[in-house]
Amino acid sequence: MQQARKQVVHRWSQLFIPTLREAPTDAEVASHKLLLRGGYIRQLGAGIYSYLPLGQRAINKIIAIVREEMDGIGQEFLLPTIHPKEVWEASGRWTVMGDNMFRLKDRKGAELCLGMTHEEVMTDIARNELRSYKQLPQIWYQIQTKFRDEPRPKSGLLRVRQFIMKDAYSFDIDEAGLDASYIKHDAVYRRIFDRCGLEYVAVEADSGSMGGSQSQEFMVYTEAGEDLIASSASGYAANLEKAVSVLSPVEDLAPTGDGLPELVHTPGKGAIADICQFLGMLPSQDIKCVAFMGTVAAPTADTPLRPVVAFLRGDHQVNETKLCAIAGVAELRPMLPAELELHIGGPAGFLGPVGIAEVMTQGSLNGLNSGKELAKLKGVSRETTSEGLKTIVIMDLGLQGRSNLVAGANKLDYHFRNVTPSRDFTVTATADIRNVLEGELDPIGNQPLRLGKAVEIGHIFKLGRKYTQSMGATVLNKDGKEVTPIMGSYGIGIERILTAAIETSAAKFASNPESKQEGYALPSAIAPFEVVVTITNIKEADLLAAGESIANDLAAAGFDVLLDDRDERAGVKFKDAEMIGIPYRINIGKKLSEGKVELVDRLLNQTHDVALADIVSTLQRTI
Amino acid sequence: MQQARKQVVHRWSQLFIPTLREAPTDAEVASHKLLLRGGYIRQLGAGIYSYLPLGQRAINKIIAIVREEMDGIGQEFLLPTIHPKEVWEASGRWTVMGDNMFRLKDRKGAELCLGMTHEEVMTDIARNELRSYKQLPQIWYQIQTKFRDEPRPKSGLLRVRQFIMKDAYSFDIDEAGLDASYIKHDAVYRRIFDRCGLEYVAVEADSGSMGGSQSQEFMVYTEAGEDLIASSASGYAANLEKAVSVLSPVEDLAPTGDGLPELVHTPGKGAIADICQFLGMLPSQDIKCVAFMGTVAAPTADTPLRPVVAFLRGDHQVNETKLCAIAGVAELRPMLPAELELHIGGPAGFLGPVGIAEVMTQGSLNGLNSGKELAKLKGVSRETTSEGLKTIVIMDLGLQGRSNLVAGANKLDYHFRNVTPSRDFTVTATADIRNVLEGELDPIGNQPLRLGKAVEIGHIFKLGRKYTQSMGATVLNKDGKEVTPIMGSYGIGIERILTAAIETSAAKFASNPESKQEGYALPSAIAPFEVVVTITNIKEADLLAAGESIANDLAAAGFDVLLDDRDERAGVKFKDAEMIGIPYRINIGKKLSEGKVELVDRLLNQTHDVALADIVSTLQRTI
Repeated sequence: MQQARKQVVHRWSQLFIPTLREAPTDAEVASHKLLLRGGYIRQLGAGIYSYLPLGQRAINKIIAIVREEMDGIGQEFLLPTIHPKEVWEASGRWTVMGDNMFRLKDRKGAELCLGMTHEEVMTDIARNELRSYKQLPQIWYQIQTKFRDEPRPKSGLLRVRQFIMKDAYSFDIDEAGLDASYIKHDAVYRRIFDRCGLEYVAVEADSGSMGGSQSQEFMVYTEAGEDLIASSASGYAANLEKAVSVLSPVEDLAPTGDGLPELVHTPGKGAIADICQFLGMLPSQDIKCVAFMGTVAAPTADTPLRPVVAFLRGDHQVNETKLCAIAGVAELRPMLPAELELHIGGPAGFLGPVGIAEVMTQGSLNGLNSGKELAKLKGVSRETTSEGLKTIVIMDLGLQGRSNLVAGANKLDYHFRNVTPSRDFTVTATADIRNVLEGELDPIGNQPLRLGKAVEIGHIFKLGRKYTQSMGATVLNKDGKEVTPIMGSYGIGIERILTAAIETSAAKFASNPESKQEGYALPSAIAPFEVVVTITNIKEADLLAAGESIANDLAAAGFDVLLDDRDERAGVKFKDAEMIGIPYRINIGKKLSEGKVELVDRLLNQTHDVALADIVSTLQRTI
Repeated sequence: MQQARKQVVHRWSQLFIPTLREAPTDAEVASHKLLLRGGYIRQLGAGIYSYLPLGQRAINKIIAIVREEMDGIGQEFLLPTIHPKEVWEASGRWTVMGDNMFRLKDRKGAELCLGMTHEEVMTDIARNELRSYKQLPQIWYQIQTKFRDEPRPKSGLLRVRQFIMKDAYSFDIDEAGLDASYIKHDAVYRRIFDRCGLEYVAVEADSGSMGGSQSQEFMVYTEAGEDLIASSASGYAANLEKAVSVLSPVEDLAPTGDGLPELVHTPGKGAIADICQFLGMLPSQDIKCVAFMGTVAAPTADTPLRPVVAFLRGDHQVNETKLCAIAGVAELRPMLPAELELHIGGPAGFLGPVGIAEVMTQGSLNGLNSGKELAKLKGVSRETTSEGLKTIVIMDLGLQGRSNLVAGANKLDYHFRNVTPSRDFTVTATADIRNVLEGELDPIGNQPLRLGKAVEIGHIFKLGRKYTQSMGATVLNKDGKEVTPIMGSYGIGIERILTAAIETSAAKFASNPESKQEGYALPSAIAPFEVVVTITNIKEADLLAAGESIANDLAAAGFDVLLDDRDERAGVKFKDAEMIGIPYRINIGKKLSEGKVELVDRLLNQTHDVALADIVSTLQRTI
């Protein structure tokens, strides 16, 4: 609870709280609707919002918590919004950021951008100011506005073009130091999200494309989210990009004939469901083929596309992030029919692993994965490289050790029976390239996985030496030798904390048939006010007097209190209070004659009468 | 003093405080040098700075004071940085802002700008949300980063391209309401600057060009400033643009001949000093002529320039802001020789008021001053308008009632004697168009004026209906009639508070020959730390223990304390503490054996010994 210092009573009649009766028609997700209806925000342009007083109060409370916790491990900076092109060229990201970066020119024609993130600027300070291992470790953070020219801004504050981030950067002399900085952030982030009242999971995240070694996202389950995560009761949690599971044993089919691949005529049975029914088997006994063309990180007109073919169980789905990582490519697109013919040799629906001629070897793949090899490929033709454009074939772990599977025969209307990996076909590599499924068992405690959409509220990341190296930051170590410090990068989306809290609460209210609550209730630590005192009728002098007195008592006890002193009907006041998400409401009404008021605990969906004398102590016990 | 809550001890050894031994060569003003030397800021680009931990601590303290005071009269918003072109077109300022506005396009080609100020965005919210007089008054503020593409960024944080402003906007139903909102801001601004420990003057400022009716700037005298202000012991204070003074009586020359204008041959005596010597008179007995061509607010290729000629005492200087205001033009440039011949009829050095043919009448001038008439002039030629391009002749009040003056005769090497205003020449208007001079008497208490450079830290401004009208914001008044609310606009430069405080202190230290202080000392309310406890030698265990203990006691008492626990020589530590501007320093040194430490009060330039037991109470009495 808030004990710190005496608060002033805020009077609704004096505040600018433009609640809306109806949700705007273009708002889809709950937090977008409710932030507009509650008078928290108004839109100025696509993905650009003004924060009105209630929104700003909530944001300020979140920032205060973040700042207080971050001050415990680091030092606050404030870096510029406008960056000269040069600092982004030094890291090589001026080009990489593409259209997501807002760019502009000043009156002299100098090229500038709006900061999307601040690795470059922080590393620039580090390279100029840090000279010795004695100055390390450093944890530098800021709370600042970021800009990204999102292609499709939407969902209110969830996907915007301007937003507030707490970003932090650690500089350490070595990996052990980075581990310590990373762990500090992990702990502080948990405290921050706990204090903000969020129900979150910390998930392993993919860190491959940024070259880092470890990465963890803090996620809140919500249908409004755009990420998919898997978690279980044993504490396992991972982004779907990274999640793995234990597969239950699957029964193989019995061999037919001599047990070797046997061509079967399967006219029109290109779909997995159809072939299963036709041959009387399960999808888990089928080999699915998914074929892509892969692109390198910064493709040019003459960069060759790379054929990437995935084989996995008929009931499994490819996870493209995992596949990209193992295949060493940046992006995938489905093969066109001509490419299927060229690289695999069959038509869609009847593709399979048996007989693919030009499969890349594991060794070449390892070379490619270094990233440098891929760059070398630029401009070479199929004729001039032996392994260059061979097909990368990746088999999912779910097929390992299996036998007598059914697979397409790379021939229209034909399948093979008795296909047994290793014996019947070669692959470039075998790896986990599939999405886990709801209910599969997690790998650490064998508990069923919960799969769901989620929104990211924070991210911690072992960045490595990408920026310190490319920008030339060095310090002298104990032996007087120049070494490159190692970095971590850590972010919290300030508005995401608010939107995630609203989404969570709105979903609870909506899914509880017994709830009489509308709108949402924010955790008291981040609500614009902790408690609203609603005078049901200000024309009744005793109600008015009691409301004023209770509000004053609560403020004196340190509560952040809003007094609804408007000349409105009680129904309107209750509805408005629900729309602005205040977690506790005290209704001053008829029961006052019995010395009682009504306390509505909107978080617990409970209402009870409380004697006037007990109001402060009751709230002190509750909040 | 800080009593609020227990603080933690900050250890210098753990902080990032990159002080510099030498001032960077490109830094000119004291605050620029000292902010760099003290490790407060680092430059990222022209007019773009990163705030390091000490800078950010000071900024955060200033912001906290501003927020606390502003919350007493208004409600905090946070408006976007990126604005769509449309909202600036609605007010007509998209064009007016010219090259000072940073402009950019998004990925879809939509035109955007970076907010320089937020009248448009606030008025946009007001026009969408305010419907009734019952919702007024509103005072809406924010603390936010602003962007201006300064042509010549310089002086460290004094003239930058990105800076933090507290900007506020009031909406009232009528002038009386605006008066009240304006007075509220005046009072709150004084409290803010008082709490920040600034020595400031509140000066009348010019409000003509923005169409407002009253305007006041809060200024701090400093040689680093770019404004000139005049103030006196009687409380009078005004920007030089606006300052007026009481002139002492001046003796007129005796008439010669028939007392009418008499042509005198004055070969080569074009300069005032020369003619005075030649004719044995004082500059105050001469009429000086200063001739300009004036331009309208948004000139185009075919907008005619307007001749504007000023006559004033030979010892006075034209104030171009005053002249622009009375002449109804936006900018002035000196006439070229051909223009002097055309519009006045004489050569430079021999210009005078007698015989100028085409002098505009007062009536036409009043029409022009409305601003609308000026727009009409666009594209008309000299032939098609009767008054259009006649010469605007303005006489300064200092010539009113005078007689027998000497003036150029608009003929090479000739002057007139016996020139008497009104009788011998006509003017378009007589007005105060001169700069006041140091030592002249102020108009309210007849005290001598102090003239000096100053930096603006705040500005309050009765804006009128310019934005509400152009953007179509209306509310219903008590009678159900649509009326246009009236606005005020109010700004505080957050960094300016810091730089002004540094400039003031550095100037005091530099000008006091008895000062042993280097650097500067910030007022304790805005210093990054209130007190630094300097352990002169950490290798002496008793000094170390005493330093830790004193720092802990001070923190427990609520002081924001920095413990210099570094393994450095005492001299280095003292110097560093002076460079970072901490107002109080406690030296833990040899006298500890007598149970004493040294308290250096850097604001008062005093050092005294204090018994260990008295340290906390002494600081409580002091800070």
